Amino acid sequence: MRGSKNIKVENVLKTPVEDQSIELVERKGIGHPDSIADGIAESISRELCKRYKERFETILHHNTDETQIVAGSSSPEIDGGGEVLDPIYILLAGRATVKFQDEVFPANKIALKTARDYFRDKFNHLEPDGEIIIDSRLGETSTELKGVYDRDVPASNDTSFGVGFAPFSETERLVYETERLIYGLRDEIPAIGEDIKVMGLREDNDISLTIACATVSSELNSIDEYVNVTNEIKERVRDLAAKEIEKEVEVAINQADDIENGNIYLTVTGTSAEMGDDGSVGRGNRSNGLITPNRPMSMEAASGKNPVTHIGKIYNLLSNEIARDVVEEIDEVKEVYVRLLSQIGEPIDDPRCASIQIIPEEETHMNTITDDAEAIVDNWLDNINKIPEMAMAGELTTF
Amino acid sequence: MRGSKNIKVENVLKTPVEDQSIELVERKGIGHPDSIADGIAESISRELCKRYKERFETILHHNTDETQIVAGSSSPEIDGGGEVLDPIYILLAGRATVKFQDEVFPANKIALKTARDYFRDKFNHLEPDGEIIIDSRLGETSTELKGVYDRDVPASNDTSFGVGFAPFSETERLVYETERLIYGLRDEIPAIGEDIKVMGLREDNDISLTIACATVSSELNSIDEYVNVTNEIKERVRDLAAKEIEKEVEVAINQADDIENGNIYLTVTGTSAEMGDDGSVGRGNRSNGLITPNRPMSMEAASGKNPVTHIGKIYNLLSNEIARDVVEEIDEVKEVYVRLLSQIGEPIDDPRCASIQIIPEEETHMNTITDDAEAIVDNWLDNINKIPEMAMAGELTTF
Amino acid sequence: MRGSKNIKVENVLKTPVEDQSIELVERKGIGHPDSIADGIAESISRELCKRYKERFETILHHNTDETQIVAGSSSPEIDGGGEVLDPIYILLAGRATVKFQDEVFPANKIALKTARDYFRDKFNHLEPDGEIIIDSRLGETSTELKGVYDRDVPASNDTSFGVGFAPFSETERLVYETERLIYGLRDEIPAIGEDIKVMGLREDNDISLTIACATVSSELNSIDEYVNVTNEIKERVRDLAAKEIEKEVEVAINQADDIENGNIYLTVTGTSAEMGDDGSVGRGNRSNGLITPNRPMSMEAASGKNPVTHIGKIYNLLSNEIARDVVEEIDEVKEVYVRLLSQIGEPIDDPRCASIQIIPEEETHMNTITDDAEAIVDNWLDNINKIPEMAMAGELTTF
Amino acid sequence: MRGSKNIKVENVLKTPVEDQSIELVERKGIGHPDSIADGIAESISRELCKRYKERFETILHHNTDETQIVAGSSSPEIDGGGEVLDPIYILLAGRATVKFQDEVFPANKIALKTARDYFRDKFNHLEPDGEIIIDSRLGETSTELKGVYDRDVPASNDTSFGVGFAPFSETERLVYETERLIYGLRDEIPAIGEDIKVMGLREDNDISLTIACATVSSELNSIDEYVNVTNEIKERVRDLAAKEIEKEVEVAINQADDIENGNIYLTVTGTSAEMGDDGSVGRGNRSNGLITPNRPMSMEAASGKNPVTHIGKIYNLLSNEIARDVVEEIDEVKEVYVRLLSQIGEPIDDPRCASIQIIPEEETHMNTITDDAEAIVDNWLDNINKIPEMAMAGELTTF
Repeated sequence: MRGSKNIKVENVLKTPVEDQSIELVERKGIGHPDSIADGIAESISRELCKRYKERFETILHHNTDETQIVAGSSSPEIDGGGEVLDPIYILLAGRATVKFQDEVFPANKIALKTARDYFRDKFNHLEPDGEIIIDSRLGETSTELKGVYDRDVPASNDTSFGVGFAPFSETERLVYETERLIYGLRDEIPAIGEDIKVMGLREDNDISLTIACATVSSELNSIDEYVNVTNEIKERVRDLAAKEIEKEVEVAINQADDIENGNIYLTVTGTSAEMGDDGSVGRGNRSNGLITPNRPMSMEAASGKNPVTHIGKIYNLLSNEIARDVVEEIDEVKEVYVRLLSQIGEPIDDPRCASIQIIPEEETHMNTITDDAEAIVDNWLDNINKIPEMAMAGELTTF
Repeated sequence: MRGSKNIKVENVLKTPVEDQSIELVERKGIGHPDSIADGIAESISRELCKRYKERFETILHHNTDETQIVAGSSSPEIDGGGEVLDPIYILLAGRATVKFQDEVFPANKIALKTARDYFRDKFNHLEPDGEIIIDSRLGETSTELKGVYDRDVPASNDTSFGVGFAPFSETERLVYETERLIYGLRDEIPAIGEDIKVMGLREDNDISLTIACATVSSELNSIDEYVNVTNEIKERVRDLAAKEIEKEVEVAINQADDIENGNIYLTVTGTSAEMGDDGSVGRGNRSNGLITPNRPMSMEAASGKNPVTHIGKIYNLLSNEIARDVVEEIDEVKEVYVRLLSQIGEPIDDPRCASIQIIPEEETHMNTITDDAEAIVDNWLDNINKIPEMAMAGELTTF
Repeated sequence: MRGSKNIKVENVLKTPVEDQSIELVERKGIGHPDSIADGIAESISRELCKRYKERFETILHHNTDETQIVAGSSSPEIDGGGEVLDPIYILLAGRATVKFQDEVFPANKIALKTARDYFRDKFNHLEPDGEIIIDSRLGETSTELKGVYDRDVPASNDTSFGVGFAPFSETERLVYETERLIYGLRDEIPAIGEDIKVMGLREDNDISLTIACATVSSELNSIDEYVNVTNEIKERVRDLAAKEIEKEVEVAINQADDIENGNIYLTVTGTSAEMGDDGSVGRGNRSNGLITPNRPMSMEAASGKNPVTHIGKIYNLLSNEIARDVVEEIDEVKEVYVRLLSQIGEPIDDPRCASIQIIPEEETHMNTITDDAEAIVDNWLDNINKIPEMAMAGELTTF
Repeated sequence: MRGSKNIKVENVLKTPVEDQSIELVERKGIGHPDSIADGIAESISRELCKRYKERFETILHHNTDETQIVAGSSSPEIDGGGEVLDPIYILLAGRATVKFQDEVFPANKIALKTARDYFRDKFNHLEPDGEIIIDSRLGETSTELKGVYDRDVPASNDTSFGVGFAPFSETERLVYETERLIYGLRDEIPAIGEDIKVMGLREDNDISLTIACATVSSELNSIDEYVNVTNEIKERVRDLAAKEIEKEVEVAINQADDIENGNIYLTVTGTSAEMGDDGSVGRGNRSNGLITPNRPMSMEAASGKNPVTHIGKIYNLLSNEIARDVVEEIDEVKEVYVRLLSQIGEPIDDPRCASIQIIPEEETHMNTITDDAEAIVDNWLDNINKIPEMAMAGELTTF
């Protein structure tokens, strides 16, 4: 163990989230325009990392965290399908190294291809050839020195911070899993689109889930079929809730529908980006997959950031890992909040401050907790290079 | 006073921010790429509101909250100025009504002109004619019915929430005012650029401010002058801190500088968007002007949203107003956290839940507080239409 | 036969091209950036015609004749291939009907997909996923009336003209066939790219062909191989010339090469659009496939124009057909020049003027020629609707 | 005088244009979309030349000849003006040197500013801030060697040719001057727009001019005013014709108008680019300002080409100069056609072939003509560097 890393573990006085009377949680699913932006940004960064490594045995500077999705227009029809009239426009921005030690590297080509493949991979009905435009204004940089990226421990590129917490509350878990469940039903129920937004509200012991789930016009022949599909989704979500949670759970889906008049949440492609809804990196889920106004959050857009030197991304991912380990490994911890603050120019394993706020289980002394928690933080900082590796391998989500 | 609006005032058990040992606060100034995006988006929405009103006596549907800033490239030189080589590219997205009851409305023209004027207004050195490209992919909609916008109280367009708190802690106030101070010094010290980022860290009683302040190459003849400018800024910030706060305040500026080797934070235009730093609406300051990971935050990008029906914007602005009134009008309140949750399709003055969490001054009973707080919330909901008016008039900030 | 169609057949005093001492002819092949623009534009128009017909039983208004190709950048290497660093950017412009009698039509989607397929179809090495960006700013129109397009004979949409001539001179034929030959060799000699430009100069009886032929880096392992390939091409072209022509033909290829220093015409994709050479519709070949400064030419960009009502396209295609028939069917005609001038608003089969200039074979009387030529013109005007049909079927080239 | 420059002067057998029974001539005025593209392209090249010279004492490589104009949409109204709804989109392409001997040069900035100024300069009603978008995808190159551009006589960059003729026929002169006249009337008659297209047809001794002249909605209060304006224009053109020409001249204006139903050629900005008409460099007038299908033409797009090394531009401009001098200085020449063919890599004053075809006045011997013509060509080739200078100074038009 190295010397002090400015780790500060403290007992914090706070009503645990589960004991607060109101709780709000949101998850924007894979096909939500903001998540599409996140997903493209992160998949490009991963692919660049992989290709830089293959070619130069090191990861070179890049940040592809500025994808912008501009909505198209469409005319879905329950009977016949309808059309995408204006394609979804996707602007890739950010920057990447295209020249290293006199060798060139086709970052733009990789970015464009990866983005196109991302759509093929994640969407069942969207047709990339005609329904999206992928444009690129990726900035280009060149690097002479391998050094920065080859130090054992890189230096912080910014004064930035990460925040994390654990564990998920029941409502948080339920919101997260609800989206995952519905997305996973697409093979079984092909009318389910990829754009699924789940909002959870807990008032004391009552949880209500409000789901907005796009449906796919070409897979539906009538309003009745649509109603069946949404009912089936509700049923499945209720089953999930019943299995996981003891509280009352109310499920509502596509509340803006007006079935009588045939106004339903219908799309041609499965995402509302086809008509009117734009999206940006970093405006949706935090890196734990949720938006949680009850919890400390970072505004950092982790998706697409370089996982080797971008301290904002690393500290956000790391904070979540530390928080999870603390609750998993120390029984007496009820909730933990982690905040890591970097100092620009200093090694990333030596934060300006590593604040660990703990809400212990009742009737517990902080004494033992403090040491154990410090050890977990210390160990993670010693192994901070695992974070980039896990990010590249796709083992850490960013949205 | 109307009937119940689901207002829930509760005493919450929480260490007040001032009593927590660690506090983190950030503000991205006017010239930061994310703030430029916010500023353009919001100024376009304001101008559209004004022009819709003049023309149609009502505000029509629009959301211009998806501006993307793609960085240019530049070569600032301390001696001679240097050049912007690739212009900053600005993509306007979102959508606006261009046709109403058979009359057309030039939303795109207004958006483009407003964005260009915004640069003229806020930047002293950037030359809009050659140093920026403003492109537009603003979606267009048409409306037949005046109705939606003419009801006394519009219906929520989404299930969304707003969060607010009051009062600002000392650190929060200091971070906010530091940026405002430096931006205001530009006439006196013309080498100061508009891109000013302030990060505040409080560890118990020690506050440290880390300032990143762009300087303008054409106003500097030597490294010495640069050092003088940054020293002068530090001096002014220290004066401000001394006047406002009793705690120890340490001020650091442009920490990545390497004066010896001439590596300093120098720009041609005053913003880092000229070289490498992209920006997006909603990734920077929350609508209170700060990023505060210690506080509940909404991910809502308020800038550019339509202030009449976009419930996410309205509730975020309203939450801040309510919180401020609660602490100003009720002496016994130490801190207040406000959360408003809408229900899609219902009147916006009838939220699904209005949660008011109060940390009272020590030795205070909640009894009187609760009623007073409820009255404040109730009154604001009765007058919710003041929010759009204040937003249009520029009386409410969104970033 | 209808009444007078303002057909004017005249004997013109002119040195026949073959008898002039200097003749210049050029052909830009399929992979030349200007031809790529033409090819995309025309293939989109054809596909739209086909799809409009299938859907509405009539062809709706469109003009997709404004494709712009913006060059990328690349680093081809003789040994290993090299990379496309900046993709080729293709902007689709023009306009198309997206709404007809309350039904929508996905013109943009069809345009994007057709353009992408065009690259897959015509290029052997270019990878559309990563090496091109296809953007669209296709304007959208709607039509209520089927009428305009359903009249037996549409009205001219403009005051415009077409010009044609026949027959090709020897040099013209040779230039045309040389490009076709080399393009056709790509399977046999995979190092041959698609960007082939042929310039022919005849000085009295000496013809010299100057060929610029892109080669493909991934198919070449050494400069020697490159030299072999270019020699092989020269050989084949000489064989072609010997077979077709009795004159002396000198063949030069890639004259800017500096073999000693390894500066050769090498590309990654087969087209110079990958590095530095932009292209536009209508700047290359005329609709007979050649650029012939010795001959009357129209500036009309036929590619991508609507073949039903765009009089400039129709009259250019028709002029060539008429000219060909005149020389094929009337033995005494040595050369013929056809000019058709429309009058806006009048039926397209009733031109303002149809001028037929004839250079008869020596010792021939114009008497019989005149009547026969008039009959040919008259017959074509009576059957002018064959032109759109032939254009749609791909039986008429536009570049 | 240097040695042979491959100058070939010959008597050509050809019916002089004035003696042919049919003649077609067209001019697209300053505000026609194709001419806008030409004008921007050429003004950027001129400005770059000037600025390169100021900075580096030499002109560096650039070609800005690929501007694309994508039409907007508008709703002009005779009474009130109407609006530009979608701005005109202008894409600057081509390439320019941004780095020379370690110094950077802001080519993009200059291009953007020049294009914006061009609109301010040439248009009276178009508002650049809101009614146009100027985007740039100008490629960037760097140069180490000053050499190429500093040789006394540069080498040809391509195998290319230029063509020219003189003198203008009566119809040609009239078409040209008609556009110039109307454009010049804008101050006196502010309802005249900049988009003026003139088509001239001569049938034996009858000339008919067909004018399409955009009018400006905000300057017209009624259809009657419109009719007065177009009548006034016709009157002025008739006066011009009467002064210059003895033949019968018929003048028609805006033939597609349907006055009864209020369908007239009305615009908000003065150019049809505001609604539906795209434009490209090189698709309009040849460098003599006309489109003349009766004459030899080059397809070369001269506008925006680098005037120092781009042989296609230089030879086209030079051909026109030579042709004019030949007819002006040699009385016995009735018509002259000039064609210059370059050979890549060879000095530009040593063309592969300089063909001078002369139609002498009747009863004239070629003997003296030949020598005089040769001397003129020879002298121009010796002073070929005057061409770039004249182009930069704006003394030579390119469209």
